[in-house]
Amino acid sequence: MNLRKLGEEQLLHRILPYLPLNRAVLQGAGDDCAVTQSPSPGKLLLLKTDCVVEGVHFESSAAPIAVGWKAMARPLSDFAATAGLPEFALVTLIAPAATSVRWVEQAYRGLTKAARMFDVAIVGGETSRIDGPVCISVSVAGSVEKGRWVSRSGGQVGDELFVTGTLGGSMRGKHLRFLPRIVEARWLTEHFSINAMMDLSDGLGVDLPRLALASGVGFELDGAALPRTRGCSIEQALANGEDYELLFAISPQSAGGVQRKWRRKFPHVPLTRIGVLRPQTARNQRTLRTGYVHFQ
Amino acid sequence: MNLRKLGEEQLLHRILPYLPLNRAVLQGAGDDCAVTQSPSPGKLLLLKTDCVVEGVHFESSAAPIAVGWKAMARPLSDFAATAGLPEFALVTLIAPAATSVRWVEQAYRGLTKAARMFDVAIVGGETSRIDGPVCISVSVAGSVEKGRWVSRSGGQVGDELFVTGTLGGSMRGKHLRFLPRIVEARWLTEHFSINAMMDLSDGLGVDLPRLALASGVGFELDGAALPRTRGCSIEQALANGEDYELLFAISPQSAGGVQRKWRRKFPHVPLTRIGVLRPQTARNQRTLRTGYVHFQ
Repeated sequence: MNLRKLGEEQLLHRILPYLPLNRAVLQGAGDDCAVTQSPSPGKLLLLKTDCVVEGVHFESSAAPIAVGWKAMARPLSDFAATAGLPEFALVTLIAPAATSVRWVEQAYRGLTKAARMFDVAIVGGETSRIDGPVCISVSVAGSVEKGRWVSRSGGQVGDELFVTGTLGGSMRGKHLRFLPRIVEARWLTEHFSINAMMDLSDGLGVDLPRLALASGVGFELDGAALPRTRGCSIEQALANGEDYELLFAISPQSAGGVQRKWRRKFPHVPLTRIGVLRPQTARNQRTLRTGYVHFQ
Repeated sequence: MNLRKLGEEQLLHRILPYLPLNRAVLQGAGDDCAVTQSPSPGKLLLLKTDCVVEGVHFESSAAPIAVGWKAMARPLSDFAATAGLPEFALVTLIAPAATSVRWVEQAYRGLTKAARMFDVAIVGGETSRIDGPVCISVSVAGSVEKGRWVSRSGGQVGDELFVTGTLGGSMRGKHLRFLPRIVEARWLTEHFSINAMMDLSDGLGVDLPRLALASGVGFELDGAALPRTRGCSIEQALANGEDYELLFAISPQSAGGVQRKWRRKFPHVPLTRIGVLRPQTARNQRTLRTGYVHFQ
């Protein structure tokens, strides 16, 4: 059975009853807009959208449940970067009429699984046919306490730089099954003052310069210290991308404490000091545009 | 110059500085999440996403500024249906590498024009390449006062049914340049108690049964009364779709008043009584699934 035979109305009958909801949802999928409680006073609204496109973000042969997982996990990873909590998601599925209903149902299983893990309600969406590859676009709304919001732009000269997990080789499979670091980011911002943070989607070699640029500083990166995925070179750890790990900047006074306490709290997730924010100088703009990497 | 030559980073440099913002935006496009003020207490959060796909929602030959307009106006029309105010939009552009930069810039001009008209900030988005047609997905967040939210499901037996504008023939051009009826919906809900409302996207013949079904009632539609676009038959007014007009149900006590006051307030937008909500009976389920249409 494919989408052409089933029709949109019937597809929705199969999908809508299984979408996850949460207590803040007043009107989920099915009306013109989704309606939810607003974030409580003292919280800011967070919004993020991301998409996956067949042939770009996943191979046609990828398991649809993994594709759905990735489609939801990508914007959730940005909530981690902001230290926010995702709450509501909208899912747009654009697929050719020949797509099997089973493929779509499995993709929704993946979307739903990732959403449920973080108590995200899927409150609406859209389906369209296309004469081309499958696209899934996911938009997420959520919130963060006013004093807790972390952006890319708060990095200070002297801050130490840390990354979670390991970098490189994500295309071997991790890019389809990574876990957004929401729990870790909430813990970090509960116990420490994090000056700047982002999630690594394009590779540290591209993303770290973005954080430094946004903060108006330079950086010094210790290439040998990079936590590399097994079998990856320093270059691959810098360039492969799709790591979906956190990069953050913290004052040197807090750097020791965060490492010690992290190890006890998250014994299975590496946290590695990889460098330091420096004044922006001509020298450290030579490589990686705003920073300097030691290849030792 | 096409997107392949320009690259994503340069494309963003061309687009980001011109995105409309509003006073509630704390962090627009460029960081991991957009950050905005929450709706004030007493308001509910509204969320909606919609998309346009080349070959489905617009022809390849359509003017890109009109395509962008339509991409933004579609979700805004759902805000009208809910009597809400749209505030923040996220735009995802999925386009082949061969797309001309000028096409993309013009599409953003259309997106921006529609957003500005309703003071909607474009606070983020995503770009991806695709080996296929152009897709633009737009998600919008906004708010509505708690007592003002209108859904499809509040229709009462005896309510009179009204539509704004004229129906049918939208494919001749209106589908690319329609005006979301936000001002009209806000005015209606300021002065009258609207029991149920929706925007007409799939055609009255499909959408009215949806409203009736959601309200748990049937309906009687006066086909001869339908406000038809010049040159359209009753059947076309029912079936063509993409009208983006409002359909609403109001108590018979208020029906006379709304027509009189509407004519003074919006002299150039027709408001037409087209029928009435009836008890759900076997008879009126014969046609249009939950209603009965008089073809006189």
